[in-house]
Amino acid sequence: MTFPSSLHALPPTVGLIGFGAFGRLIARYLQPHAPLLAFDPLLPQAGERDGVRLATLAGAAACPVVILAMPVERLREVLESIRPHLRPGSLVVDVGSVKQRPAALLRELLPLGVEAVGTHPLFGPQSAAGGIRGLSVAVCPVRGTRPARRLAALLRSRLGLRPFLSTPEAHDREAAVVQGLTHLIAKVLVRMEPFPTRLSTRSFELMMQAVEMVRHDAQEVFLAIERDNPHAREVRNRFLDLVAALGRELDNHAEPARRVTLPQSA
Amino acid sequence: MTFPSSLHALPPTVGLIGFGAFGRLIARYLQPHAPLLAFDPLLPQAGERDGVRLATLAGAAACPVVILAMPVERLREVLESIRPHLRPGSLVVDVGSVKQRPAALLRELLPLGVEAVGTHPLFGPQSAAGGIRGLSVAVCPVRGTRPARRLAALLRSRLGLRPFLSTPEAHDREAAVVQGLTHLIAKVLVRMEPFPTRLSTRSFELMMQAVEMVRHDAQEVFLAIERDNPHAREVRNRFLDLVAALGRELDNHAEPARRVTLPQSA
Repeated sequence: MTFPSSLHALPPTVGLIGFGAFGRLIARYLQPHAPLLAFDPLLPQAGERDGVRLATLAGAAACPVVILAMPVERLREVLESIRPHLRPGSLVVDVGSVKQRPAALLRELLPLGVEAVGTHPLFGPQSAAGGIRGLSVAVCPVRGTRPARRLAALLRSRLGLRPFLSTPEAHDREAAVVQGLTHLIAKVLVRMEPFPTRLSTRSFELMMQAVEMVRHDAQEVFLAIERDNPHAREVRNRFLDLVAALGRELDNHAEPARRVTLPQSA
Repeated sequence: MTFPSSLHALPPTVGLIGFGAFGRLIARYLQPHAPLLAFDPLLPQAGERDGVRLATLAGAAACPVVILAMPVERLREVLESIRPHLRPGSLVVDVGSVKQRPAALLRELLPLGVEAVGTHPLFGPQSAAGGIRGLSVAVCPVRGTRPARRLAALLRSRLGLRPFLSTPEAHDREAAVVQGLTHLIAKVLVRMEPFPTRLSTRSFELMMQAVEMVRHDAQEVFLAIERDNPHAREVRNRFLDLVAALGRELDNHAEPARRVTLPQSA
């Protein structure tokens, strides 16, 4: 069974459900390529914000392409709300930091005939401050691989992103390591502040630049990465065990016996 | 009691005790400014290496300026060996990653009339790959502040470094945080490799650049930072406790009750 794809006739209107920090970032880069309609429960349902037309939930959901840009924990609720308004042949894309559970929800709740692709743009407002060209985005097929491949091609050709295809599970396993460790370490380092200012090293400065890049992320982003990723706890526990083990090694590492290998001179 | 300072008449010959990775780095930058004599127990005691004249321990120790560039754990042994060869009015400088214990050893073992300054260049072969101008160096008075101030002025004017005066204890407290955390995190991350390659973020890449900068450091450097710094264990334990606490918070962080705040539309 095939349906006419919304991506065949460009530019389709894009409905943006969620107009928070990440929704606005998406809007900034999509605006030159497609008309946008944004819905956010905290904003009016008409008028304009940041140059983007505001709409009702029904209006945004009836677009040929619908992007879901809200916290993962609200996804079920939102899918149930937009379900009656989605049109056959439309494409629904989520942009959350985890992919397994959202993919399952999309499969469960989207009407038959609606295409679905899970994406994870691997950047945020901080890391995209200098533009998004060359930045990575994971693209996970949810219903068939064709919509995912088409979307990946568009993200590459129109936005200059570096898309890569993955499965929701492979994505979550890798994100649990890459983002799980980064955000865990960053959160702990922030809790250890203030740090010395005069004494510093290049490597410490790099680590603090990494911290700077994620410290202002919304708490929902942190929770999606650390709590909603089904593999994050295992990675966290491994990190904790290795820190503890290294501490024990160092505590037990007696100073080596004094060697007398210095040759006598003169 | 004052002695004629070796730094009044430039350029004094510099005796370099220890010609490993860091000794060679020092030599590269001092060569344009002063004659060098290097001694290393693993090298011949005459001839030349990397453009630097090799010498006996006695020869290097008899120079007006003596730089000790060997692992901190060998400092007592080396000080006892060079003691008979040091000249009154000479200046002894160490370059180790910790300063409290070396300062105590210098005070205890150097003959009266020999000046001493503890330094910690906050860079290594990796971070100095692009040159040392603008890089930091801690300078700690060991016997009086005047030699330390004179040395700091020279490091600034001749080598373009950014010296800052500190006490051995303040230095070690700050280094326990800055270097202690960096090297601890780096060592643990290296043990968690290999990491995903396609899925990556700017912040993870910055963290891995920090790792790259210290992963090839000699084990002696790691042990000086993590074991020989008297404050490192406390910092390590605090980091471990915070990682464990954050893990518990996340494990207990039930998903928030489903809120029904989405306004009805249409």
